[in-house]
Amino acid sequence: MATNKKKQPSVKKKNSRARRKIGKAPGTITYLGKREKTASVLKVIEYDEQKLEEFETSDVDALASFRAGPCTSWIDVVGINDESFIEHLGKVFGLNPLLLEDAVNTEQRPKIDDYGDYLFGVFKMLYLDEQKNIVSEHVALVLFENTVILFQELEEDVFSGVRNRLRAKTGRIRARGADYLFFALIDSIIDHYFEILESINAKIEILEEEVYQDPTPEVAHRIQDLKKEVLKVRKWIFPMRELVGRLLDSESKLISKDTQPFLRDALDHCVEINESLQIYREMSMSLMEMYMSNMSNKMNEVMKVLTIMASIFIPLTFIAGIYGMNFKNMPELNTEYGYYVVWGLMIVLFIGMLFYFKRKQWL
Amino acid sequence: MATNKKKQPSVKKKNSRARRKIGKAPGTITYLGKREKTASVLKVIEYDEQKLEEFETSDVDALASFRAGPCTSWIDVVGINDESFIEHLGKVFGLNPLLLEDAVNTEQRPKIDDYGDYLFGVFKMLYLDEQKNIVSEHVALVLFENTVILFQELEEDVFSGVRNRLRAKTGRIRARGADYLFFALIDSIIDHYFEILESINAKIEILEEEVYQDPTPEVAHRIQDLKKEVLKVRKWIFPMRELVGRLLDSESKLISKDTQPFLRDALDHCVEINESLQIYREMSMSLMEMYMSNMSNKMNEVMKVLTIMASIFIPLTFIAGIYGMNFKNMPELNTEYGYYVVWGLMIVLFIGMLFYFKRKQWL
Amino acid sequence: MATNKKKQPSVKKKNSRARRKIGKAPGTITYLGKREKTASVLKVIEYDEQKLEEFETSDVDALASFRAGPCTSWIDVVGINDESFIEHLGKVFGLNPLLLEDAVNTEQRPKIDDYGDYLFGVFKMLYLDEQKNIVSEHVALVLFENTVILFQELEEDVFSGVRNRLRAKTGRIRARGADYLFFALIDSIIDHYFEILESINAKIEILEEEVYQDPTPEVAHRIQDLKKEVLKVRKWIFPMRELVGRLLDSESKLISKDTQPFLRDALDHCVEINESLQIYREMSMSLMEMYMSNMSNKMNEVMKVLTIMASIFIPLTFIAGIYGMNFKNMPELNTEYGYYVVWGLMIVLFIGMLFYFKRKQWL
Amino acid sequence: MATNKKKQPSVKKKNSRARRKIGKAPGTITYLGKREKTASVLKVIEYDEQKLEEFETSDVDALASFRAGPCTSWIDVVGINDESFIEHLGKVFGLNPLLLEDAVNTEQRPKIDDYGDYLFGVFKMLYLDEQKNIVSEHVALVLFENTVILFQELEEDVFSGVRNRLRAKTGRIRARGADYLFFALIDSIIDHYFEILESINAKIEILEEEVYQDPTPEVAHRIQDLKKEVLKVRKWIFPMRELVGRLLDSESKLISKDTQPFLRDALDHCVEINESLQIYREMSMSLMEMYMSNMSNKMNEVMKVLTIMASIFIPLTFIAGIYGMNFKNMPELNTEYGYYVVWGLMIVLFIGMLFYFKRKQWL
Amino acid sequence: MATNKKKQPSVKKKNSRARRKIGKAPGTITYLGKREKTASVLKVIEYDEQKLEEFETSDVDALASFRAGPCTSWIDVVGINDESFIEHLGKVFGLNPLLLEDAVNTEQRPKIDDYGDYLFGVFKMLYLDEQKNIVSEHVALVLFENTVILFQELEEDVFSGVRNRLRAKTGRIRARGADYLFFALIDSIIDHYFEILESINAKIEILEEEVYQDPTPEVAHRIQDLKKEVLKVRKWIFPMRELVGRLLDSESKLISKDTQPFLRDALDHCVEINESLQIYREMSMSLMEMYMSNMSNKMNEVMKVLTIMASIFIPLTFIAGIYGMNFKNMPELNTEYGYYVVWGLMIVLFIGMLFYFKRKQWL
Repeated sequence: MATNKKKQPSVKKKNSRARRKIGKAPGTITYLGKREKTASVLKVIEYDEQKLEEFETSDVDALASFRAGPCTSWIDVVGINDESFIEHLGKVFGLNPLLLEDAVNTEQRPKIDDYGDYLFGVFKMLYLDEQKNIVSEHVALVLFENTVILFQELEEDVFSGVRNRLRAKTGRIRARGADYLFFALIDSIIDHYFEILESINAKIEILEEEVYQDPTPEVAHRIQDLKKEVLKVRKWIFPMRELVGRLLDSESKLISKDTQPFLRDALDHCVEINESLQIYREMSMSLMEMYMSNMSNKMNEVMKVLTIMASIFIPLTFIAGIYGMNFKNMPELNTEYGYYVVWGLMIVLFIGMLFYFKRKQWL
Repeated sequence: MATNKKKQPSVKKKNSRARRKIGKAPGTITYLGKREKTASVLKVIEYDEQKLEEFETSDVDALASFRAGPCTSWIDVVGINDESFIEHLGKVFGLNPLLLEDAVNTEQRPKIDDYGDYLFGVFKMLYLDEQKNIVSEHVALVLFENTVILFQELEEDVFSGVRNRLRAKTGRIRARGADYLFFALIDSIIDHYFEILESINAKIEILEEEVYQDPTPEVAHRIQDLKKEVLKVRKWIFPMRELVGRLLDSESKLISKDTQPFLRDALDHCVEINESLQIYREMSMSLMEMYMSNMSNKMNEVMKVLTIMASIFIPLTFIAGIYGMNFKNMPELNTEYGYYVVWGLMIVLFIGMLFYFKRKQWL
Repeated sequence: MATNKKKQPSVKKKNSRARRKIGKAPGTITYLGKREKTASVLKVIEYDEQKLEEFETSDVDALASFRAGPCTSWIDVVGINDESFIEHLGKVFGLNPLLLEDAVNTEQRPKIDDYGDYLFGVFKMLYLDEQKNIVSEHVALVLFENTVILFQELEEDVFSGVRNRLRAKTGRIRARGADYLFFALIDSIIDHYFEILESINAKIEILEEEVYQDPTPEVAHRIQDLKKEVLKVRKWIFPMRELVGRLLDSESKLISKDTQPFLRDALDHCVEINESLQIYREMSMSLMEMYMSNMSNKMNEVMKVLTIMASIFIPLTFIAGIYGMNFKNMPELNTEYGYYVVWGLMIVLFIGMLFYFKRKQWL
Repeated sequence: MATNKKKQPSVKKKNSRARRKIGKAPGTITYLGKREKTASVLKVIEYDEQKLEEFETSDVDALASFRAGPCTSWIDVVGINDESFIEHLGKVFGLNPLLLEDAVNTEQRPKIDDYGDYLFGVFKMLYLDEQKNIVSEHVALVLFENTVILFQELEEDVFSGVRNRLRAKTGRIRARGADYLFFALIDSIIDHYFEILESINAKIEILEEEVYQDPTPEVAHRIQDLKKEVLKVRKWIFPMRELVGRLLDSESKLISKDTQPFLRDALDHCVEINESLQIYREMSMSLMEMYMSNMSNKMNEVMKVLTIMASIFIPLTFIAGIYGMNFKNMPELNTEYGYYVVWGLMIVLFIGMLFYFKRKQWL
Repeated sequence: MATNKKKQPSVKKKNSRARRKIGKAPGTITYLGKREKTASVLKVIEYDEQKLEEFETSDVDALASFRAGPCTSWIDVVGINDESFIEHLGKVFGLNPLLLEDAVNTEQRPKIDDYGDYLFGVFKMLYLDEQKNIVSEHVALVLFENTVILFQELEEDVFSGVRNRLRAKTGRIRARGADYLFFALIDSIIDHYFEILESINAKIEILEEEVYQDPTPEVAHRIQDLKKEVLKVRKWIFPMRELVGRLLDSESKLISKDTQPFLRDALDHCVEINESLQIYREMSMSLMEMYMSNMSNKMNEVMKVLTIMASIFIPLTFIAGIYGMNFKNMPELNTEYGYYVVWGLMIVLFIGMLFYFKRKQWL
């Protein structure tokens, strides 16, 4: 029942994609997420090595000058389901409509596109909520020479570390330009993937224990859920390696030489994450195998009990049945110790059987 | 029975391919579809930014001038089983016989060929009919500088969105040339693949629920059908990624620079579709695994019931059998409370067994 | 028994390969097939656009002039187990001994070698015999500028369509040179592969039905045979794609530009065939899985019958046993309606059990 | 229980990675290992062909001159959890902060980075402890023109062979520069991988025997543990092949031409190790399969015993039941030899059953 | 027991590798085989087109001049466990120590190294001993301009065919140089791989028959042994394809143009061998699957017998039990034909059951 409920919305959401998109021209800005329409808010951080200013606004036009301003600025667009607002923002900053379509398409696969004057990236940020469930949020980034625009659906994000380092004044991040900020945001997303990996790893270890101790059907179900979770996470994380690799190889003038070693470091992390995911996948497949083998063991146990009980008592019952027959002429019945002899015979049979099963190591 | 019927035609159709093709020269125009022979109809849309004209005709020669006309035109050839008509059309537009062979070969794998003066593509358009079954229709496209020729078997297609946008006058599509129309048609085909993916995903989720609740053999059969469906859909969709990729990399003069970003967008969709198909494939394999594990569980359940019943009552029956023997000398039989003692013994045994199975967690 | 017989020759044949080859110098012409030694016959078709001549001969020297004759000629060598004849033919046409070794090596993997003045190809032609079994025959082709030499073991082949088109005078094939003939022969081999695919597909569909209806061990055996057949066919067909691809990419002067689009078409077919084989392979693996799941179902059925019968009647038999005991003092036995009460109790138990199993959905 | 305990720390350790790293700037030196904070010790070996000097120090500044000294020196940093010490050392030798981060990151995947003036590598050294468990230790290497810096967590390592060869004076190692020392250390790590492979191989062979002799659930559990071990070892070892390959292809001026053949030799070993790991992986998967098949065999055995016992005695008990009925008019009961006839019948049935099961090869 | 014995030495041998190698400098000549130390013998064949001389010696220095002699010579070093002898030979012929290390390392993976003046190759020769077991022997080859040095452990080898062709005087081999001899030796090794493949194929066919006829646990064990054998053989044979391919692509001046077509032929064989191994691998995996399905069938058979016996006789026994009760008031007991009616009822039940199981196709 619960499973059923959990899945319904996901089906509905997916259905709506095809329904909302089919027949529309490419480049049409169509929000595909599940949130209700709310006003977008712009949170701006403007900084250079000396000063840092933070403010909120919803007036896009006031920000037009930032694109080529003297300071580095980070414009954080919170709320992307007001399609006309996004379109206006796109016009002010001279963004390609195809870019805007991807920026609000919450189903968009991770990608990085080089538009010459600006770089555009779509990522999935993954984090754990209080119930330790994996939450995935769509994030889009635009890198201009001096400005980074960040599109996100909700206020919660994985970037508080970056904000703190910016405010701290002492860090390297204040001294460097927008490209380093762009890297720092991606790096922050990748760092949180490790948290996801760890939560998957913990689940695998718990399931391993349970499969071994008590392989109920419910455990099999959770193993399958885990496998699906790994598949889903892989779908979101897997492209990162190639994206960061391509960013490194590209010769975009927007990425300075100083930022490249940091990107290489991020690439290393992506490679490691993908390898871990691969291992988790194999481990989750092993779990199912282990489950099946434990089921077999249990069945064997059950069968042994049945076989031992039946093999011991069916022959004994047969003997009792013999002397329960009503033939007139059954000499044994009239002997004085016949009854005790039969008891003796039965006890011998019983012990013989026990030995037999002992020797077969069924006991 | 029903399954049997459903499959017969597919066998017959396939057989006919080899039978109709073997021994013929390559380049022989041979319709391989299942439709009965009907006259082909040409539906023409001629447009530029100012005006749009729609008409139907079956006179090919009248269209010869369109190939290099001032407006953009879309010639939609509905019905491709009149081989002589297709041959004539090919001559009028100067098309290669090998192209025509592929255009009417409804078994043709998706492909894009560059003939220098024109581009040729074969695609599968997939959509859901009213019963939510996946329908696949063969589509062939020829792109000239100013004209797109579309070959299709039936009138139904996935291009109504494109037609509406053309008629709407305001859209980008009216302002751009035949290459954008060519892209828009391919994009429309790809967009409909998402609908197919969603229907597969929905089926997986329903089957997941059923495997968990009630794993009948019929469910196993439907899982296998799903796996075959995924294989078939993959066969049709999978080549698209490479085709669109090659189209992008090719330097055909027929594809203008303005259309390229749109093609890149379509390529992104193809990549995403292929990844989803891969995930669905793994999920459908997991379904079967889950089914087997649930079957094992059920078997275990059945065995436990049998074992508990047999283990409890066989020993009791044995005891009853003992005192059903007819020995003359059985002292217990003549005691006053022997019968009650035996009942007591049986009840103790019964309760003992229950405790034993309780401890084994079989109850 | 039958299976056993069928396999023996294949083992023997294989053994002989190693035995006949080991220790011989490379380039030694060694026939590896199973046919008894018979005289080779040369069937020649000489043609140009105007005239066509057909004759049989066994005099190789008379054909020496054909290699560079004014007409196109097709020399069909039927029977390749007379090693000295083949050697003589090789000398007359100036063929490399390694080529001749491959031409008569019926175990040779498909290959295409470019010897500069001539191209050499080895292929497997596959067709169905009357019993619908797949027959594989070794074929070797040499392409000179004006001549194609074809080596085959038996008269039966898949080239009757090509012969008919040659004789028909009107076809494109008469107007084109030896390279088109070379292509037409390969194309004919590839076309017949579709027939094989269809026969495999038909087998899969029959087995699918049988697995579902009646999964006997014999069906499992036939699934395994099918899997082996797919493996074997794949071994023969799979290399074709690469070979035709390489032929296209090579810049052999023997292949004219006009023939290239036809080769590209053949390549498309090879790609499609390989994809189908891949799908058939996955489907045959699914068959075995389905078989196992149906076996499990059957077992479950059997177990349920046993469990229901035993669970219902063992307790009833126990009750009957109780009142079959011979204790002197068993008050129930002497009551007037005791017997009917017991019957009542038994019927209640019986119905209760039925309800219990009904609720468990075992009935 | 034991398994449970063994796993707890690994979860904790992993958790800490994300917790310690998230929100920190890249390049922050963060020790991720499990050791408690202890002072780092520097063990220096300074040598040329004539002389060799060994000493311990903890004064980094004194070593600054070594980087470009006349002799070759090997600085072995034992203990890497004093982050400020590492930072100071980095400054003295002019090392990139990202390098230092990786040097103390005990979770770092094996890597080799070329920083121009120096090469940096991270490796896992694997060895067996006394209980034959696989121990993995993080090792980082920096190669300057005349100096190799080695970072390791503990004093134990796999480099005693290298130290002995250095002290021996006669070996090639004394005559060659720092690049050969760098190679010798990597080679020593790789050599120890063979020991690990052998221990895995031994485990596989023991498990094979046990699966065959006595497939208890505990054996299945150990097979799964083995599979996880192979996965883990593969994760650490697998990247080595690519790393050494890249080192060979790189044109770093730090690797002299004389050292290249030795690196090629090390690459060969890596290839061989990876192949062996692949084989072990397949063998460990076969083990599980074998286990399942043996479980099936056992189940079959159990079922046969039950079926034979039940099939023989249930019909006999039925016959005894017949003549235990109390009908007044049962003529057989009053015949003189009825009882013996029934015994005869039962013995015939018994023997018949035995023959039947013998013929079925169940006995 | 037997299996146990067979495996012990293999463990020991492997253990010794790590033990003997760890801590030694690379390039140290360390024999890793299992043979006891014996003197090495040099068997020399010196030949050109006119003359051929064969002799045995153990004096390496006398052969120094052969390296650049006027004739082609083949120096066959039999016995490689005298490490000092090998070292001396290496000095006389100017061989790299790393080469010598590989030449005596019987665990060395197949490889070909180009040392400029000479080519070096390590191969595994595989042949069947009298008991049809696969024997693998380590072989190393050095090709100088005029000389081939062959290192092998024992006198037995697969090269008798080459020797005979050399002695025969008429063959091509006498007319060609050392590079052709080098090729002929490799070709001879590859030719013997076919023998191995055939023996594996024969084993698969025997096992297939046995799995079908009589799937005992011993058969499962032999299937696993076969799988391991295929893995091992693949490990030795698989690298050959790449090695021969690289030899062809290399532009070593030691390989003349005339020898290249022969190498290409050898490459073809390698490709074919690898494909066959791949097929054998899949077939051996299918065997296990087939085994499991036959086990399931057998289980089903057993269960059916049990269920039929129990389902028929348990209800009948219950009826007999009813009329074995001792109630005073049981009217049926006193009727004249009650006994016969009960028999009639039982026979009807019996036949009904038989029909029921017949209809279920369990009989």
